[in-house]
Amino acid sequence: MYRIGIDFGGTNIAVGLTDENLKILFKASLPTLMGKRSVDDMVADMAALCTQLVHRANATFAEVLSIGIASPGVVNSETGTVEYYCGMDLKNYPMADILSEKLGGFRPVYMANDANAAALGEVLAGAAKGAKTALMITLGTGVGGGIVIDRKIYEGFNFAAAELGHTVIEKDGVPCSCGRRGCWEKYSSATGLIRMTKEKMEERRDSALWSVAPSLEKVDGRTAYTAAKQGDPAAKEVVRQYEDYLAVGLANMVNIFQPEVLCIGGGVCGEGDTLLKPVNTQVMAEQYAKTSARKTKLVIASLGNDAGIVGAAALGASR
Amino acid sequence: MYRIGIDFGGTNIAVGLTDENLKILFKASLPTLMGKRSVDDMVADMAALCTQLVHRANATFAEVLSIGIASPGVVNSETGTVEYYCGMDLKNYPMADILSEKLGGFRPVYMANDANAAALGEVLAGAAKGAKTALMITLGTGVGGGIVIDRKIYEGFNFAAAELGHTVIEKDGVPCSCGRRGCWEKYSSATGLIRMTKEKMEERRDSALWSVAPSLEKVDGRTAYTAAKQGDPAAKEVVRQYEDYLAVGLANMVNIFQPEVLCIGGGVCGEGDTLLKPVNTQVMAEQYAKTSARKTKLVIASLGNDAGIVGAAALGASR
Repeated sequence: MYRIGIDFGGTNIAVGLTDENLKILFKASLPTLMGKRSVDDMVADMAALCTQLVHRANATFAEVLSIGIASPGVVNSETGTVEYYCGMDLKNYPMADILSEKLGGFRPVYMANDANAAALGEVLAGAAKGAKTALMITLGTGVGGGIVIDRKIYEGFNFAAAELGHTVIEKDGVPCSCGRRGCWEKYSSATGLIRMTKEKMEERRDSALWSVAPSLEKVDGRTAYTAAKQGDPAAKEVVRQYEDYLAVGLANMVNIFQPEVLCIGGGVCGEGDTLLKPVNTQVMAEQYAKTSARKTKLVIASLGNDAGIVGAAALGASR
Repeated sequence: MYRIGIDFGGTNIAVGLTDENLKILFKASLPTLMGKRSVDDMVADMAALCTQLVHRANATFAEVLSIGIASPGVVNSETGTVEYYCGMDLKNYPMADILSEKLGGFRPVYMANDANAAALGEVLAGAAKGAKTALMITLGTGVGGGIVIDRKIYEGFNFAAAELGHTVIEKDGVPCSCGRRGCWEKYSSATGLIRMTKEKMEERRDSALWSVAPSLEKVDGRTAYTAAKQGDPAAKEVVRQYEDYLAVGLANMVNIFQPEVLCIGGGVCGEGDTLLKPVNTQVMAEQYAKTSARKTKLVIASLGNDAGIVGAAALGASR
């Protein structure tokens, strides 16, 4: 038997057919073409990709246990509706039902917010496998969050919970697009790291950061780590500053949830232990349950770009 | 049928016999005498108080559905053990079993951390009644937290979760006893309000705060609110500052949990709507789910000093 996971992303609609252990057997994708066509057309592409993959496995839909969609925005997982997604001006769009229709009435079709689905994917088939409670923090353009309690996604009473990146860790700090100031994501996202790198470069004209990125426009999430590995003091300061903010936010999450596993993902985590070790040391020093024999395990997410697909496929498995 | 709730406090051991709806019928208490006697002796007093109340109700223990103990510290609710409580240097103390023994083998005896129990009490019989998910924030000497999800206490995998007051909201801010800097409780506890009041008084020698509290030693959690009501500008600044920090921390919790009800308790909440209204306005403006039709309801806790008793009695009801 199979499951299907659909990652409805801003750039691509990626679909995967998995086995019962959520291992991806076949994958296919099409460009989302956001802003260029109706969402109904995008759902038609989802249906086409599902059909294509089922055929590729020489299977039939009768052998598919569930289809799941991971979507951005506020997703009502009970009704399978995108309640709100500003990126496409979606409001109360019954995506699960529409996909079901386009697949000749196939059921069940589940839905969840993409960050939440990714968290579930890591718990059921990734770096947090086996954990009953886990958090997933994605360090990307922003800081995304997913909460898994008792192997189920925690969504809050209005399906809008887990905006972990929009917790203020520096009151009256850097303005955030959400309207607040000092949100964690302004410091711990890749965007935050890039900002800190640029600020340091402007302050330190002599830094080797300038040889890694010859102009401010060339700065990315790797610039500071690359220069720090070359021994540049200014770059080391940026890395320390970035990891300090990250650890403060992560320690907040540990003090709130004491999850079995705290999973961090996103491009910055490509640094691996270089990032993980000092951050873990600080989180363990700052977290409240120092006396407890059981401490939260900090790990790097393992599903990478497949997190959405696996998480969406996992939705049917966590019911 | 009845339930019994025991609030194992630093000053008093308070016990209540409730009906099945968690309404307290009889109450009794004895001083804890912490530091002056063994914890076994304290548990003997708990047993004596339980027996006394059962007699007072002309009942027998066969009519008691459950006994619950709300205790400070890290409480393992599965084993009924105080894993750690620094206030009494307790380590892995099997309080539930010992109480059971002293009551001739009465079962079940449940345990929970006191802040968690209070949260459950508010959900099952207090200001958050009917909510499936709720948070309880107590503004006292510190900022205590309790998380209720699906009408059950959320404790984390090591029973040490919900240290909501130990989340940093001002990085590198006021040093906290936990070792971190800028914890929410340094700003939003009664202690934080008193500190802010004193700081303002030293800055503004002309303020009417000095007529409400003739010396800094006389400042308490009401000083600023009293002077603000008299129109004193400096006092109003203190109140605004206090409520600003409180709202920032509460909005963080809403963004994380999107609970149906967010319950605030503790002495400062005696200010009622004077405190609640401006804080609610700011929380709603800062929280992320502005587009959602369903918004977290911010309320003031209703159980007051009975929260521990009712919460402890509620432990048996939430299984």
